[in-house]
Amino acid sequence: MIDLKRLVREIPDYPKPGILFYDITTLLKDPVGLHWAVDILANTFLAQKIDLVIGIEARGFIFAPMVAYRLNAGFVPVRKPNKLPAARASMSYSLEYGKDAIEIHRDAICAGNDVLIIDDLLATGGTAAATAKLVESLGGRVAGMGFIIELEELKGREKLNAYPVHSILKY
Amino acid sequence: MIDLKRLVREIPDYPKPGILFYDITTLLKDPVGLHWAVDILANTFLAQKIDLVIGIEARGFIFAPMVAYRLNAGFVPVRKPNKLPAARASMSYSLEYGKDAIEIHRDAICAGNDVLIIDDLLATGGTAAATAKLVESLGGRVAGMGFIIELEELKGREKLNAYPVHSILKY
Repeated sequence: MIDLKRLVREIPDYPKPGILFYDITTLLKDPVGLHWAVDILANTFLAQKIDLVIGIEARGFIFAPMVAYRLNAGFVPVRKPNKLPAARASMSYSLEYGKDAIEIHRDAICAGNDVLIIDDLLATGGTAAATAKLVESLGGRVAGMGFIIELEELKGREKLNAYPVHSILKY
Repeated sequence: MIDLKRLVREIPDYPKPGILFYDITTLLKDPVGLHWAVDILANTFLAQKIDLVIGIEARGFIFAPMVAYRLNAGFVPVRKPNKLPAARASMSYSLEYGKDAIEIHRDAICAGNDVLIIDDLLATGGTAAATAKLVESLGGRVAGMGFIIELEELKGREKLNAYPVHSILKY
C-alpha cells in the first residue's frame, strides 16, 4: 500500500488567502500512484453492474474515464452550458456566490442504466448532487459516487446521503 | 474489428453553418467502442518507453488519462491560462482569428522524459504543436502523438512532421 497523500501537493493560500489547495497533478504524473488511485476507486464498484461512468468538466474528465475503462463501462461527460453539440438536459445549482449550471446529452443515458459519478474532489457536494438529479431526470439510477479527495469539514456527504459515497483521501 | 466510425455522431452545421462536427460522445458511452479506441491508440506505443501522457483541456482530458493508465505511464494536464496552481510554463499559439495560450506545470516533466501527446481531434495541429514546444522547453522528448479523429483536409499533420503522428479515424 503506497501513501497516496504523500503524492498530493498542498498549496497554501490558493486560489485565495486562507485556502489550502490539494493539487492532484503530482499524483497524476506518478504512474504507480495514478494506477493505485484508479484501481482503488474502481474496485469499490467491481461487484456491481455499472453501465456508465460520468465525469464532470474539466478535472472530472481525468479520473472518470479511467474508472470507466477499468470497469468496462461507457463514459459520459457532463459539461458546462453550451458545450455539448446535441440535444441537452440542464440542471442549475448554487455556488458560494451565485449559481451555475451543468448539461448532459439527453441520449447519453437510457432508462434503467446504472451510473457511477466520479470526480476528483468532494467539497460542498453541489455539483455531484446536480449531476445525480440530471441522471435521474433521464431515467438512470445512481449506483454510487466516487471521489479522490473529500474535504470532510464541508459536509458534502450529507447532501449526497441518498447515494453510496466513497472517497480515497479524507482531509 | 468494430467499425468505430459508426459510433461517431455527425452533426451538420455545428458549431456554425457549413461545419460538420464529429461528436465522439456516442463513441465514449459505448463500452466496447471506448475500450477499442483506447487500446488501438495505446498499442501503437506499447513497444516504446513512455513516461508520461499529456492531455489538453478539456476534451483531451478524456482519452489521454486512459492511454496513460493502459501504458502504465503518468498523466500530465495541459490547461488554459491561470488554471494550474503551481509554477507554470506558458506557450501561445495562433487560432483562425487571434491567439490563445496553454500552460503546464514546470515540474510536470523531467529532462529526458519520453512524452506522448494524446488528443481527441487533429485539426490544424496548432494546439498539439504548442504542446510539443512546451514539452521540449522543459527538456522532455515528444515520443509521439495520438488522435482519435484526424481532419485530413486541414493538413495538421504537416505542422507536426517532426513527430510520429497516429490517428484512428481519418475524415
